[in-house]
Amino acid sequence: MKTVVRWVGMVMLGLMLVGQAAAEDGYDLWLRYRPLDGAAQARLHAQARAVVLAAPASPSLDAAVAELRRGVAGMAGREIAVSTRLVPGALVLATPGQAPAGLVLPWADLGREGWLLRRQTLQGRDVTVIAANSDIGLLYGSFAWLRAVQTGADLARLDQRSAPKVGLRLLNHWDNLDRHVERGYAGASLWDWWKLPDLLDPRYVDYARANASLGINGAVLNNVNAKADSLTAPFLAKAAALAGVFRPYGIKVYLSARFSAPVELGGLKTADPLDPAVRAWWKAKADEIYAVIPDFGGFLVKANSEGQPGPQDYGRNHADGANMLAEALGPHGGVVMWRAFVYAADASDRAKQGYVEFQPLDGKFAPNVIVQVKNGPIDFQPREPFHPLFGAMPHTPLALEVQITKEYLGFSTHLAYLGPLFAEVLQADTGHGGKVARVVDGSLHGQRLTAMAGVANIGTDRNWSGSQFDQANWYAFGRLAWDPDLGAADVARDWAAQTFTARPAARDAIVALMMGSREAVVDYMTPLGLHHLMGTGHHYGPAPWVDNLERADWNPVYFHRAGRDGIGFDRSPAGSNGVAQYAPSVARLWSDPRTTPPELLLWFHHLPWDYAMPSGRSLWGELVARYDRGVATVDDMRRRWDALKPEIDAARHAEVAAYLAVQAHEAQWWRDACIAYFQSMSGLPLPAGVRPPALDLAAYKARQFAFAPGR
Amino acid sequence: MKTVVRWVGMVMLGLMLVGQAAAEDGYDLWLRYRPLDGAAQARLHAQARAVVLAAPASPSLDAAVAELRRGVAGMAGREIAVSTRLVPGALVLATPGQAPAGLVLPWADLGREGWLLRRQTLQGRDVTVIAANSDIGLLYGSFAWLRAVQTGADLARLDQRSAPKVGLRLLNHWDNLDRHVERGYAGASLWDWWKLPDLLDPRYVDYARANASLGINGAVLNNVNAKADSLTAPFLAKAAALAGVFRPYGIKVYLSARFSAPVELGGLKTADPLDPAVRAWWKAKADEIYAVIPDFGGFLVKANSEGQPGPQDYGRNHADGANMLAEALGPHGGVVMWRAFVYAADASDRAKQGYVEFQPLDGKFAPNVIVQVKNGPIDFQPREPFHPLFGAMPHTPLALEVQITKEYLGFSTHLAYLGPLFAEVLQADTGHGGKVARVVDGSLHGQRLTAMAGVANIGTDRNWSGSQFDQANWYAFGRLAWDPDLGAADVARDWAAQTFTARPAARDAIVALMMGSREAVVDYMTPLGLHHLMGTGHHYGPAPWVDNLERADWNPVYFHRAGRDGIGFDRSPAGSNGVAQYAPSVARLWSDPRTTPPELLLWFHHLPWDYAMPSGRSLWGELVARYDRGVATVDDMRRRWDALKPEIDAARHAEVAAYLAVQAHEAQWWRDACIAYFQSMSGLPLPAGVRPPALDLAAYKARQFAFAPGR
Repeated sequence: MKTVVRWVGMVMLGLMLVGQAAAEDGYDLWLRYRPLDGAAQARLHAQARAVVLAAPASPSLDAAVAELRRGVAGMAGREIAVSTRLVPGALVLATPGQAPAGLVLPWADLGREGWLLRRQTLQGRDVTVIAANSDIGLLYGSFAWLRAVQTGADLARLDQRSAPKVGLRLLNHWDNLDRHVERGYAGASLWDWWKLPDLLDPRYVDYARANASLGINGAVLNNVNAKADSLTAPFLAKAAALAGVFRPYGIKVYLSARFSAPVELGGLKTADPLDPAVRAWWKAKADEIYAVIPDFGGFLVKANSEGQPGPQDYGRNHADGANMLAEALGPHGGVVMWRAFVYAADASDRAKQGYVEFQPLDGKFAPNVIVQVKNGPIDFQPREPFHPLFGAMPHTPLALEVQITKEYLGFSTHLAYLGPLFAEVLQADTGHGGKVARVVDGSLHGQRLTAMAGVANIGTDRNWSGSQFDQANWYAFGRLAWDPDLGAADVARDWAAQTFTARPAARDAIVALMMGSREAVVDYMTPLGLHHLMGTGHHYGPAPWVDNLERADWNPVYFHRAGRDGIGFDRSPAGSNGVAQYAPSVARLWSDPRTTPPELLLWFHHLPWDYAMPSGRSLWGELVARYDRGVATVDDMRRRWDALKPEIDAARHAEVAAYLAVQAHEAQWWRDACIAYFQSMSGLPLPAGVRPPALDLAAYKARQFAFAPGR
Repeated sequence: MKTVVRWVGMVMLGLMLVGQAAAEDGYDLWLRYRPLDGAAQARLHAQARAVVLAAPASPSLDAAVAELRRGVAGMAGREIAVSTRLVPGALVLATPGQAPAGLVLPWADLGREGWLLRRQTLQGRDVTVIAANSDIGLLYGSFAWLRAVQTGADLARLDQRSAPKVGLRLLNHWDNLDRHVERGYAGASLWDWWKLPDLLDPRYVDYARANASLGINGAVLNNVNAKADSLTAPFLAKAAALAGVFRPYGIKVYLSARFSAPVELGGLKTADPLDPAVRAWWKAKADEIYAVIPDFGGFLVKANSEGQPGPQDYGRNHADGANMLAEALGPHGGVVMWRAFVYAADASDRAKQGYVEFQPLDGKFAPNVIVQVKNGPIDFQPREPFHPLFGAMPHTPLALEVQITKEYLGFSTHLAYLGPLFAEVLQADTGHGGKVARVVDGSLHGQRLTAMAGVANIGTDRNWSGSQFDQANWYAFGRLAWDPDLGAADVARDWAAQTFTARPAARDAIVALMMGSREAVVDYMTPLGLHHLMGTGHHYGPAPWVDNLERADWNPVYFHRAGRDGIGFDRSPAGSNGVAQYAPSVARLWSDPRTTPPELLLWFHHLPWDYAMPSGRSLWGELVARYDRGVATVDDMRRRWDALKPEIDAARHAEVAAYLAVQAHEAQWWRDACIAYFQSMSGLPLPAGVRPPALDLAAYKARQFAFAPGR
């Protein structure tokens, strides 16, 4: 890591500009509300002369008004008043019960959280209506109107409406009670548990604003690898304090629950979910929680996975465990999100285990249980096929869990826009009659309890996410959880316009850079369906050679199976037959290497190095070419970003440039180390013209990384 | 901790003010440079029409100019140019070599780092001269001039000069390489080791600016409980990157060195300081360090203390260990700071151990070794007598180590201005011919190598120090390290003027509040010379009852020795005779309870509960009265702060008010728990009119505090 690009100098230069405008540091996220140019300011002011309230007073309505005033003041440079009269150019916040005379709207289509924005004439005056059936809907609508302003929409012809397709849109914080964030690369946990509940960091409000602007309506505060302490009275008081801050923004608080808490906290001898004392303990605990957090969302549970306790410790199954908790929460309206991320120790194919344990339980879960399934069957790799449980449990609500934090995609230093990854799984056809998005939104099997969860990438770093561009992944998660059918590029376009610049050429250049970025990571880390090649424990950097870990399926060699004969994990019927977990139409395609997309080839097939790829190259040649393509893409991203310099404020431009330099260096490292290793397996010469790795394999193997974050 | 004072609401209100001025969050520290009122702005502008450079170009000079321009722009609202002509109203930055004709100054008195500010006529023009013998001196002088502006000095009559009395003014960061800060209550470590050296947080520059504004000229980057990793090439590269940022600000980088590093990193079988291979290893390591950090400051070492390895592991003494490192660093100009914080396991009186181990080694240390001595003989208690080593090692440079972070004074939630604590030890008469300050500045025994070290209270919290008022402790440390004879109230006055308001009445009200705050903590935690009564491990809250720890001298009961017969640790000649480690004149006073100041009474004496205090009360009555006084003072601090509301920005006022509410609650808790416990020892009734503790003793004993920060 010799690449030393210093951006401090540039930032200092920025600070020296004696106008004293604070350097942009990313804290404001996509809610920057910087002044528009003169003409646009005038247009905005004409459309936002006052806020008119036609809705019942509430803290959420206050938040909506505050946000509108903040946004207009920032972008138009003028304060707007709250008026009781329907003045021309007003922003009218309306619910059906208090809607002004003459306002006729399709209220029923908006549901509880949806919103409508419409420029129209009302009582003879041209106004903009922000309408919803609830105060939260008005808040969402206000953020939507501000987004329209930020992205340059024609405010004089505004006519939009939207309602969320997914009910629970949740961040999962893997935050420990000591403020360490598991797999966190953005500093410490936002939650200052020690100072809570007495001292409330103003940042909690900004967190809530950012989430509300996307429609995120829940936060699981603590790590799925949970401590029982989070369920004790002192910590419930702390969670309640956060819930109080979040409530006006429509965000409910959830907690990860440790399954053995009745033993650890209650002094019981067992946590057996069928034991009456255990059930009583959880009921009492739920009552205690709801006494301090009346709108508590529910529990997220990681059970019998990676050492966590669970019902199998007592000979029970996942449904037994989940249903016990559901029984306790049900009377209060709470839900249980029970994670399907499990892999039993005797697995011949780790990719099969989630399905093996959960699919037979379809229909066995209580109505307020959601089984939370990761996007793919392994663990948040740069690319995985969709999880075979999607579509395979028609009688069970299934939540999609994606990882916003980039445990396996370069931490916070690599620019990898995850919109395409999220959209890829959502748009994947399950073969069970619809795509994954239809499972997630419940329409495929008529589920009313629906959820999408994202493992948060947020911490105390000033820019929230560890890098400027990682903010886009938080954003994309929120937007896609609201509407899983949005296009990743459209979401990127909104984000770039709100976050960097709405000037179309620059905005689109940023979008183009973003849209290629995740595929670049796939290419330089794990092309062609390879997976799980990363360093042990910290998951940083390449280590395809690792073969000595305690469990077979923790070793990269278990997953890539490279040898003199070829490479890849045979999950075809001739191999583990993992492919059979998919619907027949999908299984048929992926059983045959010739009909398997190249992107998933080595996920499902073990193939000889000279296997002929559609490109005309051998598999070996294709593998090398993809690694090279990944490196080249990052180099190209750097050039594109450099060209954007005149369009971006100096501080953030310099910061991103410095990060891209690191990424370019590390992409080369991944490429070199993997090629060196796979060449040692294939025994083949590099294709003509290909640059050999910079170092020999031993040098890559020797690298150690102490004190990596997020462990 | 039921006291719930919410300041988020107020902050939100602040944010709703659509003027969009960002709420004050404390990030700017005492370098806020907010606009002066109109008349003061005009006066400032008249005195700062341009910056004229009469000094060699250098990065430090650039930093000085940038700071002046930033400050004037902020306070006067106008940009100032850098001019080559001596215009009227210029700020002339001058060194002797390039001083304008006619400038006659006492250059020699300024030394290498000192500065002079003088309004004078030069070549017929009225200008302000900022003069120094070095670029760093000019930077310090520029900060001093800005301070003069901020504090309302008469710029038209300015005539100040100052040179530091102490050579090395160092922050000791107890920061681990995983970003956890031992005894840190302000978030994570500023040093993002993982992203270093490639990515440099702009905050590093602001850290350097803040330190330079006080004259702090060195930073030990890592915890004294050191990992050997900090000395490996990758971490040296990271330290070098920080050194590069800090260099223009006159700040050298130091590292805590793990004594056993030759074994852990070098593969040697021993770390014996007399072993030639060990000595060679350290020499080579020093050479390696200086190759990447040419101005590396040196090593700080905690050896044979609390489990850390050291020379005694090999039958050698502290001088043997320190001198080996000194030999390695010496050729490069580096120093060794060898900590005297040791307490051997067989101690009958822990307070005596530092002296016992170190005093006999006086004169045995190499010339570039400084023995670093904590302010008192135990461990940063709210009050301790000065350490008996001060004055007792005339042939050895001694550094004073104080703790800026409030491990034992309420973490970052309690308002306790430490200026009086620092000044108290500095002004203490050693009885060896001068006060502690004269040991620290070297004048008592003619030492040229001088140092003062402060254990930093800085972290990633937006306000740097965990609370607004804890910034004052960083500030006071820096100012007193520069000039140990400054008064704590004078320092507080400057800080309050720079940080909150220069309006005299409000400023003085803040100073008054600050000046009583440390004594309040002493009163409600450990009055009358009591010490070490806090909770185990985390050091949070009262736990005078603890008697079951592995080592006797880790137990509060060891220190207070309360029983039916009385209370206090007898260190008089009739007891441990710890008092004999002091100079005879001091020992004589403190041997007799009647001549021992009440503040130190129970430090040196075990006295019956009915011992008659000078106040006329019994000892028991006095103890209770002091606890009550502490609580009352905090209540009074709250009232004083509330009254300041019109004078302080809403966000910071609300934040401090919320913290004070916590402090009031916890002061009461300390008072109640300690009185309940000591009453169980004394068996005496509470004096008439005294309110009994809110709960019974068992309730206080039962309290547990998981996940306390800083462990």
